[in-house]
Amino acid sequence: MLIIGEKINSTRKAVDAAVRRRDREFIEDLARRQAAAGAHLLDVNCGTLDAEEEPQAMAWLVEVVQQATGLPLCLDSANPRALAAGLEVHQGRAMINSISGESARYREVLPLLRETDSQVVLLGLDDQGIPPTREKAREVGGRLVDALCEAGIEPDRVYFDPLVRSVATNPQSVVDTLLLMDDLRQAYPGLHFVSGVSNVSFGLPARRHLNRAYVVLSIAHGLDAVIMDPTDAVMGALIYAAEALLARDRFCLEYIKAFQNKKLDV
Amino acid sequence: MLIIGEKINSTRKAVDAAVRRRDREFIEDLARRQAAAGAHLLDVNCGTLDAEEEPQAMAWLVEVVQQATGLPLCLDSANPRALAAGLEVHQGRAMINSISGESARYREVLPLLRETDSQVVLLGLDDQGIPPTREKAREVGGRLVDALCEAGIEPDRVYFDPLVRSVATNPQSVVDTLLLMDDLRQAYPGLHFVSGVSNVSFGLPARRHLNRAYVVLSIAHGLDAVIMDPTDAVMGALIYAAEALLARDRFCLEYIKAFQNKKLDV
Repeated sequence: MLIIGEKINSTRKAVDAAVRRRDREFIEDLARRQAAAGAHLLDVNCGTLDAEEEPQAMAWLVEVVQQATGLPLCLDSANPRALAAGLEVHQGRAMINSISGESARYREVLPLLRETDSQVVLLGLDDQGIPPTREKAREVGGRLVDALCEAGIEPDRVYFDPLVRSVATNPQSVVDTLLLMDDLRQAYPGLHFVSGVSNVSFGLPARRHLNRAYVVLSIAHGLDAVIMDPTDAVMGALIYAAEALLARDRFCLEYIKAFQNKKLDV
Repeated sequence: MLIIGEKINSTRKAVDAAVRRRDREFIEDLARRQAAAGAHLLDVNCGTLDAEEEPQAMAWLVEVVQQATGLPLCLDSANPRALAAGLEVHQGRAMINSISGESARYREVLPLLRETDSQVVLLGLDDQGIPPTREKAREVGGRLVDALCEAGIEPDRVYFDPLVRSVATNPQSVVDTLLLMDDLRQAYPGLHFVSGVSNVSFGLPARRHLNRAYVVLSIAHGLDAVIMDPTDAVMGALIYAAEALLARDRFCLEYIKAFQNKKLDV
């Protein structure tokens, strides 16, 4: 399971302030704590800044975070110029977060994929928004993966985000999402799946239990990357457990290693 | 989800001693605490006693526990005379734990099912032991459910236990168990599924995470009863969460009620 650390995101007020004043120490600390907790990539997002300022801030973030951790980053922006500025200074293989079927975004992000070996988060939506049914979501998702293939971006570079909705507003949301992942996984071997862990519980109390159960269920349907707080040790332990149970952890060696490293002491 | 409280079991030394000295208060306390935690049935097992003593002890347990809680019980014994003695004094609809394809047990427990309206735990094994493959397990399970049907015991009285093995010894154990449940559920609508929560992690460290993830995964494949410690609030919260996510909790009302009753404060 690829753990993408979510904490360097300027929708969090303290991060926004730190980015604006270029507070290197604050960002380094946030980066290092996520790396120490086991994140494989770190998401960096400074989308609260003006479109004019965002590219320069993104480049600064990429340099600071990579110098602090050496980790590859998930460049998270709706602004293609910010993505390009981040990619320019990024060392190693980045992940672009995100492309989608929205015409403008697709047209502007695709060249960044063609010019680099970056991986990419593909949001399963188009100009009509998030598809309202599982069938429509399958159709939109398949069309987008096909289009990327034709453009030379193979499925194994793509992390499909099925954009699960909260079960508070749509009780079938998770069931449909799991089946959508099954459908796409069968149609596109090698395609990856990524999800945020908390949309599923929006509007409900005690969200952490729903988020945890959602991740466990999704792993059984092919989820192989999550955007989460990597310092959430309870979630981490459940991910190790689900992988051991689902025969994705040979001889449970990763589980046992996590235990030895005190990662299961929660 | 039917929660069957597991704590009144004489393999626990304190329970063994309490049963032998007929310590009513000790048993009542254990019963009431499980009832207060939300158990729907309580398992009662005094199988460490001699075969001669077990029937009388079982009858005593049934009376004490039912007077303390009013709950139906899961009469847990390999001794048909103990089951009969328990059934004789049991009020309401009991669950017999268990019948299996082992010839002697099948022959001796079947009459107890025909003479009462009890529900029953059906262990998926026969005289050859636990089936070594998923295909064999499907065949044995199907044969047993068919035999019970022919004897007038409909699938909706039956809780099939797929007897999951530890992933420490068989990495495919959980995957096979989930698929077995799918197979049997499709073949026998109305059939229930029950499982203990901890066999899956035998021989591994930090077992609780594996047990929790196993229950979440199994709910997605039809598990509708668990034999567990009902005071394990973390497991309880994950069960509520999984049912809400899998559209088995209309408008998440049970989840919200559990939150209001402080059951999700873990």
